[in-house]
Amino acid sequence: MLANRVRHTVAFTLVHPEGSPEERDFLQAAERLEDIPGVGAFELLAEVSPKNGYRFGISMEFADRAAYDRYNEHPDHIRFVQQRWLPEVSEFLEFDYAAR
Amino acid sequence: MLANRVRHTVAFTLVHPEGSPEERDFLQAAERLEDIPGVGAFELLAEVSPKNGYRFGISMEFADRAAYDRYNEHPDHIRFVQQRWLPEVSEFLEFDYAAR
Repeated sequence: MLANRVRHTVAFTLVHPEGSPEERDFLQAAERLEDIPGVGAFELLAEVSPKNGYRFGISMEFADRAAYDRYNEHPDHIRFVQQRWLPEVSEFLEFDYAAR
Repeated sequence: MLANRVRHTVAFTLVHPEGSPEERDFLQAAERLEDIPGVGAFELLAEVSPKNGYRFGISMEFADRAAYDRYNEHPDHIRFVQQRWLPEVSEFLEFDYAAR
């Protein structure tokens, strides 16, 4: 990774049944996080390790910590967290990576 | 991500003090995992989220699950796990990602 760049990742599981319309709707809403300014290399992924129960992952990159902070404070992000993430995600873990 | 491709990631913390020669030696050994056949997009990273205590991360990609399995079974990987990972890593969590 380039110096200063931050890769924000989160593994998560939804309260919705696998393959349900509610799951699909949540994932579609999550994909729109890509449109928030500063978000790069956005990926909505399947989590496939047999060693944990998480079913999905999101990975995105920011040019630097300030861009990441602006994303966190962006109204579209705050709205997504409050209206979708908190009620619909049952478990999650976040990891942020940077160059050493 | 391309179909079939698997991104194997692990966040971890060492038993060694921060900045110690033992830490440096472990990280140098970990970097050599990149030489194992099938390993692509190898990154040894700093884990920087204030929301967890993990200090490092490794990310690597395999063309498919079979290539990932061959890596897991490769003698150099098994030797690294037994001789370095198990005695020197205090905590870790693995996540594997694939295209949805």
